[in-house]
Amino acid sequence: MVDPANTVGIPVNPTPLLKDELDIVIPTIRNLDFLEMWRPFLQPYHLIIVQDGDPTKKIHVPEGYDYELYNRNDINRILGPKASCISFKDSACRCFGYMVSKKKYIFTIDDDCFVAKDPSGKAVNALEQHIKNLLCPSTPLFFNTLYDPYREGADFVRGYPFSLREGVSTAVSHGLWLNIPDYDAPTQLVKPKERNTRYVDAVMTIPKGTLFPMCGMNLAFDRDLIGPAMYFGLMGDGQPIGRYDDMWAGWCIKVICDHLGLGVKTGLPYIYHSKASNPFVNLKKEYKGIFWQEDIIPFFQNVKLSKEATTVQQCYIELSKMVKEKLSPLDPYFDKLADAMVTWIEAWDELNPPAAAAANGKA
Amino acid sequence: MVDPANTVGIPVNPTPLLKDELDIVIPTIRNLDFLEMWRPFLQPYHLIIVQDGDPTKKIHVPEGYDYELYNRNDINRILGPKASCISFKDSACRCFGYMVSKKKYIFTIDDDCFVAKDPSGKAVNALEQHIKNLLCPSTPLFFNTLYDPYREGADFVRGYPFSLREGVSTAVSHGLWLNIPDYDAPTQLVKPKERNTRYVDAVMTIPKGTLFPMCGMNLAFDRDLIGPAMYFGLMGDGQPIGRYDDMWAGWCIKVICDHLGLGVKTGLPYIYHSKASNPFVNLKKEYKGIFWQEDIIPFFQNVKLSKEATTVQQCYIELSKMVKEKLSPLDPYFDKLADAMVTWIEAWDELNPPAAAAANGKA
Repeated sequence: MVDPANTVGIPVNPTPLLKDELDIVIPTIRNLDFLEMWRPFLQPYHLIIVQDGDPTKKIHVPEGYDYELYNRNDINRILGPKASCISFKDSACRCFGYMVSKKKYIFTIDDDCFVAKDPSGKAVNALEQHIKNLLCPSTPLFFNTLYDPYREGADFVRGYPFSLREGVSTAVSHGLWLNIPDYDAPTQLVKPKERNTRYVDAVMTIPKGTLFPMCGMNLAFDRDLIGPAMYFGLMGDGQPIGRYDDMWAGWCIKVICDHLGLGVKTGLPYIYHSKASNPFVNLKKEYKGIFWQEDIIPFFQNVKLSKEATTVQQCYIELSKMVKEKLSPLDPYFDKLADAMVTWIEAWDELNPPAAAAANGKA
Repeated sequence: MVDPANTVGIPVNPTPLLKDELDIVIPTIRNLDFLEMWRPFLQPYHLIIVQDGDPTKKIHVPEGYDYELYNRNDINRILGPKASCISFKDSACRCFGYMVSKKKYIFTIDDDCFVAKDPSGKAVNALEQHIKNLLCPSTPLFFNTLYDPYREGADFVRGYPFSLREGVSTAVSHGLWLNIPDYDAPTQLVKPKERNTRYVDAVMTIPKGTLFPMCGMNLAFDRDLIGPAMYFGLMGDGQPIGRYDDMWAGWCIKVICDHLGLGVKTGLPYIYHSKASNPFVNLKKEYKGIFWQEDIIPFFQNVKLSKEATTVQQCYIELSKMVKEKLSPLDPYFDKLADAMVTWIEAWDELNPPAAAAANGKA
């Protein structure tokens, strides 16, 4: 059948995937000129901009984008005393955007991330790939050697149990970065010129029981499935640590996804990460995290949530108690963080009352 | 410095990696003409050919290859009554080659596997990539999102614990297949025309605690580290099951590697798999395995080896007892298999006495 739109030469512009079910969350301290390059892929979607730092500064958003913007004053006004759980002067503040969204899906991206090209030179529609990742199942219970079995041209290999081929719902899609890799300060210092040029054409499920370093630069998730665990912790101004906001969220979401039988994928899509942050500044932010993670990771590897914890909120509150008990001896910071985890859930439930979620068909 | 060999135009032919420390094991029922294509990469190495089926048949090996060949009569003569643990009329007989080798490394390949090309059109030296995989560490304890951190141009990403960056020794390197994917009979029947054309430029460690479907078509391993667990079970003639030989070995080696703190890698190198086996014949061989794996895999997922098991042999004997106890109720076959596992270890130790291994500096 001939498409009449084509016959008259008008380009067909199909409705973008999940247009009304997804918000793009961007934390920033500067003008969002980077969105110009993303226009073909992101303009149809609604943006939630979380302005970090000085609230009097005016952030410019390229014309044509539909957005809402929150600065610190807005956060304080909306959350009242519970605003204490949202980091200040740190991109960890982005999680406020997850909380105020009313959509099922979130894509979050940093303002120094540009459109990558695949090996054929084609611009990568990162959001479209994230949506594909989220809409098809994950396989955390058994490893598939040909990577994502649901992808076109792939399948489960010989020896993959048939009972596991339905997979589980995907809660998180973690994308990667060409050009500047996401290295810690010591690695940045040792290899200042290393660039990631390897385009690995794969998406895979991170197996159950395995932790991973989740980077918040190019990340998508299903708010209904895992949103309340996507808390980026207390970082930045007034805190002894930075650059561990996404790591913290990654450890938390992974143990909760494992407990609830949800999947986490990593791999495609790539973005082009344009500029390396200053390794000396990063070292200052990171150095406590570098020590602490040696204890935090074994802690998370040993987390066992109870059978009674059947919602993300219940899991998260249980986890906060374990953090208080097991990590506070490491540093008083974890006592404060455990309290902030509880505050975060209270604030989440206030802004996302169960009834409203139910009415949305997502309880 | 100028290389004198180059100045006179003689091509430099460096000694191939591990030339005297690696055997190539090939199970076959036909002439090995496929080795012609592999000549540039494999000819320097020693071959161990295990002739399957009729021992009176003469197998032709392309000229210039250095090899030893064993047929069923040889296996019976060398192992005596213990020859019962070596499968007949099934490529599972290849594991006899692992046993008679005296080298540290094994590469095993099927005779319908040809040289693959990478996306740039360059012929893939599969063995060289396997050797690279085996000689650099694995990272089973924490996931690295940029894949193998030891590869050129890659590293550990932010948030990867520094205490885990030394990795662990790699015991197994599992390579993949372009063209005909390694599908089971039902998938072959459903998708007879599916071909794998996706070249994924990655090597990764399979995390601790995660099982995978190990294919024996394109596989390398460190005999000293894991050899005695690389038993391909009882398949083929007189057995109720086929095409699960490599799967069985894969489940066994994975739980033992996890217990002993060794690594298993999968990904590169690719070979070009030329011909799909007959799905109807395969279905007949596989159908019991398809049922049984639904119980076998949970069994392996729950295997806990004791602290006393500190050698591969000890682990394997423990495993054989668990197989007898937990899987025999499934079918009397597993009782026989558990006995064969013990016979295999006895035969292994007979051909590889601990003293000799120690003299080799590999005990």
